[in-house]
Amino acid sequence: MGALRSEQQTAYDGLVASGLALDLTRGKPAPEQLDLSNALLTLPGVDGLGAVAGPDVRNYGGLQGLRELREIFGPLLRVPVDQLVAAGNASLTLMHDLLVQCLLHGTVGSERPWSQEPRVRFLCPAPGYDRHFAVCEQLGIEMVPVPMREDGPDTAAVAALVAEDPSVKGMWLVPTYANPTGSVVTEEVARALAEMPTAAPDFRIIWDNAYAVHHLTDVETPTADVLGLCAAAGNADRAFVVASTSKITFAGAGVCFFGGSAANVAWWLRQLAFQSIGPDKVNQLRHVLFLRDADGVRALMAAHRALIAPKFAIVAEVLEARLGPLKAASWTDPAGGYFVSLDVLDGTAARVVSLAKGAGIAMTPAGSAFPYRDDPDDRNIRIAPTFPSEADVRAAMEGLSTCVLLAAAEHLLA
Amino acid sequence: MGALRSEQQTAYDGLVASGLALDLTRGKPAPEQLDLSNALLTLPGVDGLGAVAGPDVRNYGGLQGLRELREIFGPLLRVPVDQLVAAGNASLTLMHDLLVQCLLHGTVGSERPWSQEPRVRFLCPAPGYDRHFAVCEQLGIEMVPVPMREDGPDTAAVAALVAEDPSVKGMWLVPTYANPTGSVVTEEVARALAEMPTAAPDFRIIWDNAYAVHHLTDVETPTADVLGLCAAAGNADRAFVVASTSKITFAGAGVCFFGGSAANVAWWLRQLAFQSIGPDKVNQLRHVLFLRDADGVRALMAAHRALIAPKFAIVAEVLEARLGPLKAASWTDPAGGYFVSLDVLDGTAARVVSLAKGAGIAMTPAGSAFPYRDDPDDRNIRIAPTFPSEADVRAAMEGLSTCVLLAAAEHLLA
Repeated sequence: MGALRSEQQTAYDGLVASGLALDLTRGKPAPEQLDLSNALLTLPGVDGLGAVAGPDVRNYGGLQGLRELREIFGPLLRVPVDQLVAAGNASLTLMHDLLVQCLLHGTVGSERPWSQEPRVRFLCPAPGYDRHFAVCEQLGIEMVPVPMREDGPDTAAVAALVAEDPSVKGMWLVPTYANPTGSVVTEEVARALAEMPTAAPDFRIIWDNAYAVHHLTDVETPTADVLGLCAAAGNADRAFVVASTSKITFAGAGVCFFGGSAANVAWWLRQLAFQSIGPDKVNQLRHVLFLRDADGVRALMAAHRALIAPKFAIVAEVLEARLGPLKAASWTDPAGGYFVSLDVLDGTAARVVSLAKGAGIAMTPAGSAFPYRDDPDDRNIRIAPTFPSEADVRAAMEGLSTCVLLAAAEHLLA
Repeated sequence: MGALRSEQQTAYDGLVASGLALDLTRGKPAPEQLDLSNALLTLPGVDGLGAVAGPDVRNYGGLQGLRELREIFGPLLRVPVDQLVAAGNASLTLMHDLLVQCLLHGTVGSERPWSQEPRVRFLCPAPGYDRHFAVCEQLGIEMVPVPMREDGPDTAAVAALVAEDPSVKGMWLVPTYANPTGSVVTEEVARALAEMPTAAPDFRIIWDNAYAVHHLTDVETPTADVLGLCAAAGNADRAFVVASTSKITFAGAGVCFFGGSAANVAWWLRQLAFQSIGPDKVNQLRHVLFLRDADGVRALMAAHRALIAPKFAIVAEVLEARLGPLKAASWTDPAGGYFVSLDVLDGTAARVVSLAKGAGIAMTPAGSAFPYRDDPDDRNIRIAPTFPSEADVRAAMEGLSTCVLLAAAEHLLA
């Protein structure tokens, strides 16, 4: 073991000396992916103004967003067009607003505004999306972690918590190709979540379908029909569906969506009317003209896949080659989405990230994928390989593997 | 008088029979005004991507908005570029969020979140902007009307209220060409507002400069330098400056701005980071390429003026011809902005709007320009003449005048 440690230390010293400056932190599209949507940069054109029905897209109004755009995304998101809202450029803004409205006013079925409850708690499948957790923390919503499995959250743990505790008002969930594990909520798990009795009459699942069409293989894994399942279970208002085109067209200049029961949509539009006279319909029109229909979206996503699947393959290849022999390490092999979730030797994740930083490789801070940044086992590291070039992904993963091995050697010899 | 009433009734019956369908309700740009910015419909183009410094505008990031756009609007809004944020498509969204953040977290200088105060009150110069008042009502902020004069709010009334009552946390103000009166806050009034002692340590003026560059005459009335005045008075954090391009470029697809002290800007960006990874920078780039500089904005506004000043002239002409003889009616002759404020015989505004509706002329509901829609004299009517054609403005104003006269005759004979 001493030799192993010394060997890894030598490898790490070489890594530091090589002077890398690499970044695997955020799930950002690469420039080549953004190029795929450059047609948006000259759309809609004056002629394009006539392509949609209804009032002038350049003027105020149209709070629900362009119907033509909702018709493209409704089927992909499994939300009836009338129950879908097309809004601004960020689903994060939308999710934040949904919670703010619940806090200030309550939602459909609420007995009072959530802010007037003694406390408000949210279930957080973990590992999960750090920005979800940050919104809760900022809004004073207590987070309760529940285990995230390959088929979605641990439904037994969830059911037990929601059945007993009326302060549990909701849960976060990325149903398809979850951030960071790549988990896909199965029909069975979705049905269990739709059917489970909840102590809170206004319990909400924030069904953040950020990666609904972001397949990395030939298999187009469908997302469960959460609205249909909730309605069938007599809990029609349970799910808030959220999505965006941030990783379909332009990350900073796309369109986001909200879907729900007719009552939830009417509720949110009522709140929205106080803060908006309508979304950027010109940008929505751009998306209508560029994407055309659901098949247009699928073709675009296939082009994304061609660019990023090789990067995920490099991640898998390097991890297998370098960490395969290390029994303590495991990682996901996602069929879609933007991340690989790496579990290193328990108690070493923070050290790995620190070592990586010292070697010029920026990683998301250890623990980021957990509520309050608290990974109880200190083992999870999120890898976001889409933005760097293939060469940089390879160099970063080689370097990261060196850090994992050195941290493991340090830990086992400590 | 009986003859007058009978004459007006006959005129009104003729109006109803003519089957109008006209709308003077909202301050919306006309299609011809929107056409002025149609270059935006094909911008930025792929070549335009290189026109600004910094990270890829298509990707995430850049929470403060494009510096190049802030450089255009900073001087026009009298806000230092570093203290200006360029955000999404709606200043209403921004103002709503500012108040939500104050309620949930408090702002710079707050002793606690506003929602934890026993009560929160806002001063509302009236007549004023109905959507400001709706935000307060929705958020449970009590509204206290103060008189709006030609030179801005009644500073004696304002100073007395803010000096004594720590629950008065802020006030609304449209400083230039106010909605609906066209009032312009003078330097003197602005200084008084900047200097006055306030019981609340975190009193805020929401300085909604929606019509900063929207001149209807040759005179480019400057807006007072509220941030400078507040800083000079030792109340640097007192003003939240807000503006947008909604009535410069596209009403539904423009860019909005927030300006304030360095501390206020840092505060808001901290809150914003939980709900956005950045604004639509592609749309901001479009605006940079289209507007180019402050003179580009001025040239565009001159073209707007050429289209809408004739409509305001028609309003003045018809009101003078039809209501000039009626001593009880008076109206504004704004030097800018989007509205004419008409005061009819006390006690008849609601009747006038009702009569107009019966004749197919849609007006904003009487009282809309007052907190809680309560016009204590029932005399104010807001006229928004920009959207309809000149012929429609004339027909609507003739019809409205008939309604004013009939309502007056009814009232005086009742």
